[in-house]
Amino acid sequence: MVKLVALYKRPPDVAAFEKHYQEIHAPLAEKMPGLKKLEVSHFTGSPGGEPKFYMMAELYFDTKDAMLSALSSPEGKAAGKDVMSFAGDLIHMMFAEIS
Amino acid sequence: MVKLVALYKRPPDVAAFEKHYQEIHAPLAEKMPGLKKLEVSHFTGSPGGEPKFYMMAELYFDTKDAMLSALSSPEGKAAGKDVMSFAGDLIHMMFAEIS
Repeated sequence: MVKLVALYKRPPDVAAFEKHYQEIHAPLAEKMPGLKKLEVSHFTGSPGGEPKFYMMAELYFDTKDAMLSALSSPEGKAAGKDVMSFAGDLIHMMFAEIS
Repeated sequence: MVKLVALYKRPPDVAAFEKHYQEIHAPLAEKMPGLKKLEVSHFTGSPGGEPKFYMMAELYFDTKDAMLSALSSPEGKAAGKDVMSFAGDLIHMMFAEIS
């Protein structure tokens, strides 16, 4: 199984970010074909001090091909365009293979 | 549900890191009381270029209290001591609440 991991730095306006994420972005992401699970986590602290990130979204797919197909689908492009519009300077996305 | 998220930067010696992680560290981490799941992912790329991290370990617990108890248990302390010995300069750990 594979996943797309999106790490978000703390937004300047947390309330506006959360509203956009929950009402607009998450519904767009959930329309991506082949998506098996979307897990959203908020970081609450770090053993060593401050967490480097604010939030993480993990989008699970069966295979790397399925993940890449989803990203290049119309739904994936819409979700990608949306995320860049409200969090382009906050996000770091990575592809991951689960052991 | 909550999790401890450990992000690892790319180690200078990947083979030595993987051997230590798989043969010594993962078995120590899996002994932590209350651990529900350990999910290990390796980053294979990034849409924007290079992934900022090499690997991620996610340790799931039912509650924040269970996670903190596990970390302060003898098994948690042993796992923490071990990780600092071989990856102290690579790791960033964060506590997370799953939505």
